[in-house]
Amino acid sequence: MPDPAPRRLSSPKPRTRRGQDTRAAILRAAETVIGEVGFAAASIADITRAAGIAQGTFYIYFQSKDEVFRELVVEMGRLTRAFLTEAVADAPDRLTAERRGLRAFLAFVAERPALYNIVMEARFVAPDAYRDYYQTFARGYAQNLAAAMQEAEIRAGDVETRAWALMGMAITLGERFAIWDKTKDLDQVVEDVFDMLERGLKP
Amino acid sequence: MPDPAPRRLSSPKPRTRRGQDTRAAILRAAETVIGEVGFAAASIADITRAAGIAQGTFYIYFQSKDEVFRELVVEMGRLTRAFLTEAVADAPDRLTAERRGLRAFLAFVAERPALYNIVMEARFVAPDAYRDYYQTFARGYAQNLAAAMQEAEIRAGDVETRAWALMGMAITLGERFAIWDKTKDLDQVVEDVFDMLERGLKP
Repeated sequence: MPDPAPRRLSSPKPRTRRGQDTRAAILRAAETVIGEVGFAAASIADITRAAGIAQGTFYIYFQSKDEVFRELVVEMGRLTRAFLTEAVADAPDRLTAERRGLRAFLAFVAERPALYNIVMEARFVAPDAYRDYYQTFARGYAQNLAAAMQEAEIRAGDVETRAWALMGMAITLGERFAIWDKTKDLDQVVEDVFDMLERGLKP
Repeated sequence: MPDPAPRRLSSPKPRTRRGQDTRAAILRAAETVIGEVGFAAASIADITRAAGIAQGTFYIYFQSKDEVFRELVVEMGRLTRAFLTEAVADAPDRLTAERRGLRAFLAFVAERPALYNIVMEARFVAPDAYRDYYQTFARGYAQNLAAAMQEAEIRAGDVETRAWALMGMAITLGERFAIWDKTKDLDQVVEDVFDMLERGLKP
């Protein structure tokens, strides 16, 4: 898929542990601030204040609010994927992994609802970062499904379409059941979805 | 689900055919303009210019850009639902209706991609309208699934969770295959998804 927006050169990543910690603190502060007030209203001063660092320090790590936002979108994707990979590591087969993966995703969303604000605002503020976010997820998802198909753990079918369909499901279920209204038990949500996904809707 | 944002009183709808046409033209122009440049950058002057009416005429129908945007979100929902209802009217059973409904939704999205810009921007600009949009869809969806369950046209299961899952799938598939990259045949996308939805992933 062609990516029309040119990529800017990003700042180099710090090599020292302390530098890495400061950079991580800035990203975490950006998550809180931008997640709360939105990209336009958030200032670099708000972010450095939330991170507990001097404003000048920000520029050692990022050139601009735009850069920290783009990096935040990438980082949220990395964090989510790392969390899911960990959650499904011991799954004996793909369907169990899918089930645990959805459950972990809903837990992640409930814990860090700013994820949605940030990724969905990226659609407008940094469309290429938004696409990359989903494409990276979908690619990994499709690879897992393809491997499972090879092992006959799932029925044969188009892995790309399935990956996007399953991803879309998770996003909407997260917003509905882990952000808007948390009264329904998330284990039950996962059971109900997987009843459909594993056995199908056909009577 | 409680709705925290207070609703403003909206302007009365016109009674004459001519008034209704003008109002519809304003909404259609708002769809084009806001869909293209976003809510913040769009001005009422841009909208009235695109609608081919005097700026003062706008205020006969809407009090503000905010009001026209909210009404646009409602209208996009109405249009989509009317289009889908029409597309599935002759379906002999629910699974056929689901299949035709998804196909029609993808066609609608390909034709009017501004739908996504508007609804997703509503998440930030008019969060209550955004929720209403999805809740109205989900309610109708769940009712259809419940009726189909009664008729044993689909397997028993939680209709609310299924409705949100299916809706999320459609949204993401629309963005991926009907907006970003249209190279994959949309009939094939629908076939591939319904292979999973009807028969399940279990081998």
